[in-house]
Amino acid sequence: MYSTFAWGKSSKEAGFAPLTIERNVAGEEDVTFELKFCGICHTDIHHANNDMGITKYPIVPGHELAGIVTAVGSKVTNIKPGDKVGVGCISDSCFNCSSCDEGCEHTCKLGMTMTYAYPTKHGHIKTNTGYTLGGYSGSQTVNQRFIVKIPDDYLLEAAGPLFCAAITMYSPLAEWGAKAGGLNIGIIGIGGLGMMGVSLAKKMGNKVTAISRRINKKTDAIAMGADTFIVSSDLDSMAGGADTLDIILNTVSAGHQMADYLPLLRRNGTLVQLGLSLEKHQINQVQIMRKKLRITGSIIGGMAETQECMDFCAKHQIVPKTKLIKAAELDEVFEALEKGNDQVIRYVLDIAGSNQ
Amino acid sequence: MYSTFAWGKSSKEAGFAPLTIERNVAGEEDVTFELKFCGICHTDIHHANNDMGITKYPIVPGHELAGIVTAVGSKVTNIKPGDKVGVGCISDSCFNCSSCDEGCEHTCKLGMTMTYAYPTKHGHIKTNTGYTLGGYSGSQTVNQRFIVKIPDDYLLEAAGPLFCAAITMYSPLAEWGAKAGGLNIGIIGIGGLGMMGVSLAKKMGNKVTAISRRINKKTDAIAMGADTFIVSSDLDSMAGGADTLDIILNTVSAGHQMADYLPLLRRNGTLVQLGLSLEKHQINQVQIMRKKLRITGSIIGGMAETQECMDFCAKHQIVPKTKLIKAAELDEVFEALEKGNDQVIRYVLDIAGSNQ
Repeated sequence: MYSTFAWGKSSKEAGFAPLTIERNVAGEEDVTFELKFCGICHTDIHHANNDMGITKYPIVPGHELAGIVTAVGSKVTNIKPGDKVGVGCISDSCFNCSSCDEGCEHTCKLGMTMTYAYPTKHGHIKTNTGYTLGGYSGSQTVNQRFIVKIPDDYLLEAAGPLFCAAITMYSPLAEWGAKAGGLNIGIIGIGGLGMMGVSLAKKMGNKVTAISRRINKKTDAIAMGADTFIVSSDLDSMAGGADTLDIILNTVSAGHQMADYLPLLRRNGTLVQLGLSLEKHQINQVQIMRKKLRITGSIIGGMAETQECMDFCAKHQIVPKTKLIKAAELDEVFEALEKGNDQVIRYVLDIAGSNQ
Repeated sequence: MYSTFAWGKSSKEAGFAPLTIERNVAGEEDVTFELKFCGICHTDIHHANNDMGITKYPIVPGHELAGIVTAVGSKVTNIKPGDKVGVGCISDSCFNCSSCDEGCEHTCKLGMTMTYAYPTKHGHIKTNTGYTLGGYSGSQTVNQRFIVKIPDDYLLEAAGPLFCAAITMYSPLAEWGAKAGGLNIGIIGIGGLGMMGVSLAKKMGNKVTAISRRINKKTDAIAMGADTFIVSSDLDSMAGGADTLDIILNTVSAGHQMADYLPLLRRNGTLVQLGLSLEKHQINQVQIMRKKLRITGSIIGGMAETQECMDFCAKHQIVPKTKLIKAAELDEVFEALEKGNDQVIRYVLDIAGSNQ
């Protein structure tokens, strides 16, 4: 084990404070990297505030890590010190189940280990607390399987959000045939996830419809590549989009009813639910039978697909809009994010800058 | 127009009685055939009894028609008098929308005309009542587009049910990749639809799990090709099947909750709803996100696919178990079917035999 610094919270009420934590020294299949940046995701706030009632303190949030490799194990052949790398939501899995075998570590049958606040049960990652400690920290070590290589020409501070927001959108687009282009894609919710969805779907060669409750998102959505805009709170606007979309990616986390969006789909169209919405949906099966509609869900993506997403974003220079903050600003930013989850700009913790 | 005989009901309370009806003489793209047999579907009973409150009387039910061609129009080139043919649930559509263009007449954007009790609005089929009159009749004329060719070696009396039950199961199996074999397929509800599903899925080369509330369906299901059997009312039996199925075809028409069956699906598995169940389903999207499950629906199939299904059944000699009845027995059979919708044997009206 080795020591490194981090910023964490010791209770729900406490502010962020510096901590010293321990991580495992790189074994033969591990990679250690110096953290330069870590994106701030709304999930960080839920966990830090114990919104789900499962948080163990101290917590070190952060699952959008980006940095520079400092050490690799003897069996690591395609990553070397000095490389730009990142880690996303996943830091460990069982390596033995059919999901892991098929590159779907995120659906590991024994349960993936997320990058913070998860027990280190699979044993490829270790910390002094017995549960994972995230990226608001000076260094990280993970098995090479969970490392994403960041191309040299990609802005390091913008890479972190790709491993969370971008892959969440990229994976269902890939699964439902949008990589070949030529489809009509709807994106519901024009926040961090939605903006990545608009850019990705457009660069894949599709026609993109941005869908939001509020017309004020239109300018940003069009700027990111949306061809058309539907105001979901306006019945006429919704009626105008009826029967036009092949795929809808729905990022809404607040309570809603899927059935409200189904009329937008064409025959054989697919609605993909992506938000952690807990309200139950009321589904009339005759509605989905008539047009053979499909309802499904998706959650981040496997490691190979995350790398593919990173490479696609680098090739097409899809770069999230970011705003760098220092560690001293974490409490203030968390407070601001608590008030709304539809930011287009992603806040990114400037780790090196915070220590100056 | 020409006259032919039929058996119909003049009110909900009336029994079946002989009628004389009129149909259009074959135009240049039409086919007229002498009806020999017509399968009796549970839907016939719902319509005859005005269960949906929309029935116009007199009603002539029947959408599982099989007979011998007697006349064809000048532009009909691949069907000739003497051929064995059939008609299923669809007798007309608009011919101009994207659904019709893509061979999906059953999802015609202006609404398909079903074979009985539907207004003859598209104009390719005509009757003296202004709405379609079904197959409990001596003769039928339809546009060649709605004719299914029955191979010479296929039992004519067993063909009708293929155009309803078999295509309902064949279409989603084809859509979700089961034609290539090698998948684990579950079939819920071991009645007329379910039995066809078991046979089709097995002959395509898949492993088949039959699922029913009642263990007494097991022997029949295994005989039709099922590899395993799950009793859905038995929690242990359901738990034993958890995480095993790639596709589930759910034929249940009674009220139920889809969520009860989702645990049977593997990652990326698909649940296809096929029954006209009206009770709303309560769906928790986190459940479908975690394993990326898919929920969809399907309804019969287009004409090209119906022909493909017929040819598949002929090639593999998938032949529904049928029981011939005379017209004089219609009231009695309807009464029996009203009491339960899980018959393995399909009743088929012997039209020629009824006139002897």
